[in-house]
Amino acid sequence: MSPEQARREQDLVDRVVASFDDTESPRLRQLMQALVRHLHAYVREIRLTEQEWSTAIAFLTECGHVTDDKRQEFVLLSDVLGVSMQTVAVGNEAVGDATASTVFGPFFVDGSPRIESGGDLTFGAKGQPCRVQGTVRDLTGRPVPGARIEVWEADEDGLYDVQYRDERVAARAHLFTGDDGRYSFWGLTPTPYPIPHDGPVGRLLEAAGRSPIRASHLHFMVSAPGLRTLVTHIFVDGCDYLDRDSVFGVADSLVKDFVQHSAQEPPPDGHDLAGRSWASVDFDIVLAPAE
Amino acid sequence: MSPEQARREQDLVDRVVASFDDTESPRLRQLMQALVRHLHAYVREIRLTEQEWSTAIAFLTECGHVTDDKRQEFVLLSDVLGVSMQTVAVGNEAVGDATASTVFGPFFVDGSPRIESGGDLTFGAKGQPCRVQGTVRDLTGRPVPGARIEVWEADEDGLYDVQYRDERVAARAHLFTGDDGRYSFWGLTPTPYPIPHDGPVGRLLEAAGRSPIRASHLHFMVSAPGLRTLVTHIFVDGCDYLDRDSVFGVADSLVKDFVQHSAQEPPPDGHDLAGRSWASVDFDIVLAPAE
Repeated sequence: MSPEQARREQDLVDRVVASFDDTESPRLRQLMQALVRHLHAYVREIRLTEQEWSTAIAFLTECGHVTDDKRQEFVLLSDVLGVSMQTVAVGNEAVGDATASTVFGPFFVDGSPRIESGGDLTFGAKGQPCRVQGTVRDLTGRPVPGARIEVWEADEDGLYDVQYRDERVAARAHLFTGDDGRYSFWGLTPTPYPIPHDGPVGRLLEAAGRSPIRASHLHFMVSAPGLRTLVTHIFVDGCDYLDRDSVFGVADSLVKDFVQHSAQEPPPDGHDLAGRSWASVDFDIVLAPAE
Repeated sequence: MSPEQARREQDLVDRVVASFDDTESPRLRQLMQALVRHLHAYVREIRLTEQEWSTAIAFLTECGHVTDDKRQEFVLLSDVLGVSMQTVAVGNEAVGDATASTVFGPFFVDGSPRIESGGDLTFGAKGQPCRVQGTVRDLTGRPVPGARIEVWEADEDGLYDVQYRDERVAARAHLFTGDDGRYSFWGLTPTPYPIPHDGPVGRLLEAAGRSPIRASHLHFMVSAPGLRTLVTHIFVDGCDYLDRDSVFGVADSLVKDFVQHSAQEPPPDGHDLAGRSWASVDFDIVLAPAE
């Protein structure tokens, strides 16, 4: 590249960065100036052609046009580029042995039903019963009594209740830890399911030879006064998709042993399984201090 | 930042980059893997919060929703971030004293009327008459006969013909250089006008204390066999917006002296000015070799 060409490209970057100098909000200024530097570094490194630029504009336009109240293609795009997960990682820094965070996802709903610890949150959702239990502790190892645990998951067809055609609430609830920090509940053994892949993001995954499947998982959000709210999943050891989760949510520390039990083996709490096999998993949770 | 935190963030980048390893098209693989590296570098450097991420998703969604056949908010966004101009710079490298390229813009229309060299392309568009003349040469200084010159510009209200409420064609045409490489035409003295700023991109400009105004300019596209097609503007020396063109299209070498003439001063070609003052400008064009 000629010195004149390098000068033109760098001069342009400098002028665009300077155009944001008078931004009233210092944080917006910082966000925009860094965005400009990184975007231009990309265009210059990759020598983006005008044709490729047009294709990208058309792709973003299509993402906008398929996005509505029910479908958020930009979130999907962020998810499959790992940007959502990186934002989570940056916002929930590793401290001691605090449980790792992962993506929130689009299926949480405020106002879930409360169940007692030990209760059943399936409310008729289809799938193998699964008993989940553990203790919530802080970084010093002290149990956290009264921690609020929100749980939500897909049924064995890969559907969350909000995707049902009716208004049923199923496979979601909240409960609280006891005085000893312990909790347990009956949910469903998670199964893999695809993210929506009939739009532009699905085409991108196909062009990349990538699967739209999310590794089997169960969502948790755990909160308690003075402690950092934890948004995470647990994953099923042995699931085929652990190494290619479409949104990069998997961390080794979140992969758990879901033990299979035959219908003949009675569960410890006498729960009525209606003759079905079941699973059990232990998930001990460690909360970081609030910032 | 703890070593564990740095490891988590970098590991995520590595996994997302690797997820594109099987992309069939080598160029798409390169584009996506570089995009992932740059996007994640941005998120990590700026420590993007989940709230800021949500705001960005909502902004992109709004850009998608205001985009239709007539309005392209993603192009505007690319323009005001200087990305459009950087793509032009990267795609049209500086060679010798070849005339600099600038942004194409959304107002070019295929199939413009042909005028003879020396003719008038205003077709009734409002504004001060302006005589433009020059010579098209190659890098060796040889005149280029038969070069095709497309010209298009806004009227004195800042509107292109495609923005009129009727189907009139005005202030656009094409002509060819003569055997000596020379050309001339009558157009309009350009005036400043705003890019559409009643949408999300307009709000961004406002938050940044930036003007939506484009510096006064006249569009050219010049092509000839064996030479690189030049897309550029000329700008008016003395225009208030030269140092803050909203899309960063200005290069010093494209700022020209538009000489003002009173109505009493007859133009050299005897053109009928209907008693109006007029302007004149010289624009010699140098085309690079085709790649």
